[in-house]
Amino acid sequence: MTDLNSVANRYIDLWNERSPRRRRELLAAHWADDARYIDPLMSGDGHEGVEAISGVQARFPDFRFRLLGGADGFGDHVRFSWGLGPDGADSPIKGTDFAVVKDGRIRSITGFLDQMPQGA
Amino acid sequence: MTDLNSVANRYIDLWNERSPRRRRELLAAHWADDARYIDPLMSGDGHEGVEAISGVQARFPDFRFRLLGGADGFGDHVRFSWGLGPDGADSPIKGTDFAVVKDGRIRSITGFLDQMPQGA
Repeated sequence: MTDLNSVANRYIDLWNERSPRRRRELLAAHWADDARYIDPLMSGDGHEGVEAISGVQARFPDFRFRLLGGADGFGDHVRFSWGLGPDGADSPIKGTDFAVVKDGRIRSITGFLDQMPQGA
Repeated sequence: MTDLNSVANRYIDLWNERSPRRRRELLAAHWADDARYIDPLMSGDGHEGVEAISGVQARFPDFRFRLLGGADGFGDHVRFSWGLGPDGADSPIKGTDFAVVKDGRIRSITGFLDQMPQGA
């Protein structure tokens, strides 16, 4: 059985991790070697491709991702919503991501935006 | 460019179509030959597999699917929410589906439930 919240929390942890070395460890542990990531703004293939995207987060040092509500899903399919914003404040940016899991590791992520401030 | 609302509306049309012959025509026109469908309750591969699922809807002759809000997405990825219920009434069952499109036809659907009455 896929632990839906673990998948979601590990994913959030990756985007919040500031150390490139630690990000690569998280990718090796929790993402399939041939993992694919795509959202309306970015895409990346494999651990290197995904790591390059997560490195972008370093540009916004005061912003952190947080899980909104709980993950839901079935079989190898997981869905969860997240917020991105300054620590402790309401998240101005929100989205929902869909994961496909394979052997306990993330095989693909397709991300959609739910809320984006005008001008962002 | 993928016409997001067309993808969603054609999909809703299929589930509402009561004629098996017409459903097969819609599948041939709008779904890839190797299309895959999966939700928490059912799954089906290819036109025959998906047609078998849509045939289940005949058990609920008073219920119809309707699109809730507009579809959104990017590239070949589409997301939309739907309601299922008696014609003209508020939909007691709601869900959100994620489509991947290929050459203008639906390649895969992954469906999640957003609202389900207790005991349903």
